[in-house]
Amino acid sequence: MLKINSNYQKLPGSYLFSEIARRVQIFSQEHPDADIIRLGIGDVTLPLPEAVILAMHAAVEEMGHKETFRGYGPELGYDFLRQAILDHDYKARGVELSLDEIIVSDGAKSDCGNIGDIFDVDNVVAVCDPVYPVYVDTNAMAGRAGDYDGEKWTRLVYMPCREENGFLPQLPEPDADLIYLCYPNNPMGTVASRKELQKWVDYANAKGSVILFDSAYEAFITDPDIPHSIFEIPGAKTCAIEFRSFSKTAGFTGTRCGYTVVPKELVRQNVSLNQMWARRQSTKFNGTAYVIQRGAEAVYTAAGQAQVKANIAYYLENAATIRSGLAGAGLTVYGGENAPYIWCKTPAGLDSWSFFDQLLQKAHVVTTPGAGFGPNGEGYIRRTAFGDKVATAQAVARIAAVL
Amino acid sequence: MLKINSNYQKLPGSYLFSEIARRVQIFSQEHPDADIIRLGIGDVTLPLPEAVILAMHAAVEEMGHKETFRGYGPELGYDFLRQAILDHDYKARGVELSLDEIIVSDGAKSDCGNIGDIFDVDNVVAVCDPVYPVYVDTNAMAGRAGDYDGEKWTRLVYMPCREENGFLPQLPEPDADLIYLCYPNNPMGTVASRKELQKWVDYANAKGSVILFDSAYEAFITDPDIPHSIFEIPGAKTCAIEFRSFSKTAGFTGTRCGYTVVPKELVRQNVSLNQMWARRQSTKFNGTAYVIQRGAEAVYTAAGQAQVKANIAYYLENAATIRSGLAGAGLTVYGGENAPYIWCKTPAGLDSWSFFDQLLQKAHVVTTPGAGFGPNGEGYIRRTAFGDKVATAQAVARIAAVL
Repeated sequence: MLKINSNYQKLPGSYLFSEIARRVQIFSQEHPDADIIRLGIGDVTLPLPEAVILAMHAAVEEMGHKETFRGYGPELGYDFLRQAILDHDYKARGVELSLDEIIVSDGAKSDCGNIGDIFDVDNVVAVCDPVYPVYVDTNAMAGRAGDYDGEKWTRLVYMPCREENGFLPQLPEPDADLIYLCYPNNPMGTVASRKELQKWVDYANAKGSVILFDSAYEAFITDPDIPHSIFEIPGAKTCAIEFRSFSKTAGFTGTRCGYTVVPKELVRQNVSLNQMWARRQSTKFNGTAYVIQRGAEAVYTAAGQAQVKANIAYYLENAATIRSGLAGAGLTVYGGENAPYIWCKTPAGLDSWSFFDQLLQKAHVVTTPGAGFGPNGEGYIRRTAFGDKVATAQAVARIAAVL
Repeated sequence: MLKINSNYQKLPGSYLFSEIARRVQIFSQEHPDADIIRLGIGDVTLPLPEAVILAMHAAVEEMGHKETFRGYGPELGYDFLRQAILDHDYKARGVELSLDEIIVSDGAKSDCGNIGDIFDVDNVVAVCDPVYPVYVDTNAMAGRAGDYDGEKWTRLVYMPCREENGFLPQLPEPDADLIYLCYPNNPMGTVASRKELQKWVDYANAKGSVILFDSAYEAFITDPDIPHSIFEIPGAKTCAIEFRSFSKTAGFTGTRCGYTVVPKELVRQNVSLNQMWARRQSTKFNGTAYVIQRGAEAVYTAAGQAQVKANIAYYLENAATIRSGLAGAGLTVYGGENAPYIWCKTPAGLDSWSFFDQLLQKAHVVTTPGAGFGPNGEGYIRRTAFGDKVATAQAVARIAAVL
């Protein structure tokens, strides 16, 4: 008799976004005329940059002719894309990598989830609290999280990020083997300085841990002192894996391309993690579509870079609108500078779901309750800067009016 | 100290295709003027059908305008594609399914590899011998295969497919919880009758096993008596999962789209495997690109169907050329009818690598040695029908001339 992976039975429902959808649906039914503005989910609204569109059209055309048709591509990514990534995202920032340290995929969510395949079940995993749920759920599915007690997983080490510590995690206690860090942070919109990241690199090298560094939002960094990559930190190549995405940089949320950097110097138990990840991907993945990789390559052209920067500036202006508008309305706000997320304290006495309900019912604005990201998210809501400019300003004005 | 997944250390190198590449490279260097025809790897050569190209151009254009731009899609696939699949691949063949039983992905290789996530490590796995290596390697990585003894994995149950049993596997001994079947078969080119499949469905229902049915090559079936789907067999919905791909049907090897059918009636230990797979995919995957799904949808239009059928006919004509040419040259050939693979017995006294070498050196034709697919593949080579028509005929003539 077949046995299922019983760890799946321990997972609580995908509560957060389904509960948001449920509450929005009830409200919509009761108020069919309400013009609801959705600033909850972190999805982009601007179209793909023109350079990407042109490149994808050209690639589609190639696929339609026998002479230029492409079948199976290299499982780990075409060199044309790996080279563009290497030159622009790393060499330009002083980080030397080789092409086979950059492994292209269909997105950072897949990679963040699948990376667990190369690690033993017995490792101790540390996550920030609040945290992007994929890190937690994928470890729970693999049996690395223990049991869920209704609020936390018994085997995970949580690193609380609270107002009093500037929302920055402290080193894990007890020690952890795998440490998930995300900068610029989802959901809190925080960034990490060189000094802060050096603390983690030194810890991981001392303990033999591995940092899983999610820098999906690095394109939003405008402060020149903030590193975009963990590999800008001395010593990181012997202790870190970095996940990158075209989703928020270039609007690829529905186009699907990302990459993971696993340095060859990253060795544990005398085994190269680069070789393990390459083996994982070439065995359980068959490469990202050629058309999509050509689109991603175009992000790095001069035209693509200008268009991407304009889009990022548009979203950062939204972030500034949200920050100043909510602060002006008397709320305490964090993030939204060098990051597309604003972490907003609920007014005194309101928990995050109550504030969510208030904003939905009175302002017709959908946000994300912080409690959905972990116990220490209670008392906050997350706002995203990825909306339409007019709608974003309108939402802020409506919120200010009802507070 | 971080612990790696030590199962990866047990994997032998990806011997087969790297060894083929090595031998071809050496030969090329020694014979730079040789015109080598490669019929080893199962990659298509015809371009994408025009209907697919048009649909992808239109979708790319949508992505370039704010009003029609698509961000995150549904993780399990757009309904427009799921509905087209349901209507054409199942309803038209008398199989009733609901949309949420069809889960769209970036290809059958990913799904065949990732499906293991929802099963316990302790299950006993049965595979045919010879077999598509992904089934074996992914189970080995998960710790389900035991140790590799240089030829076989100690915990896998091998089902020998030999000339004397018509290359059809017998029921596993000892009993197996997970059974991989692939029809039309890669590498042997065999097909399974209704009666043959009923044997497996009855076994799996009686034992509580699950059949993992790979029908990536179903489009090559022309005989009306051969089922295209395991779900054409009574009882299959309570014991089978089916993997499908647009790779060989519509030339999507570099475009990446497939789907997996997990019926809601498939329950083990009181848990719905459909819900488990949906949870796995929505947690560790973020959907297939919108542009690609629109391309796949176009396969089901009247124009798309006509174009796809013409391509399949082209490849099946290659298969017939190979079959008759090699048989005419005195070789014993199997497969290649209702399947794109031809399984060819080596001449007396030659093992499969020696015959590979002979064909490479004398005929300048690259094939795949059967031994690379498992011990019972020894004594055979695999030829694929996916090449260019002229090159295929030329290769056959050259082989006939040197035998």
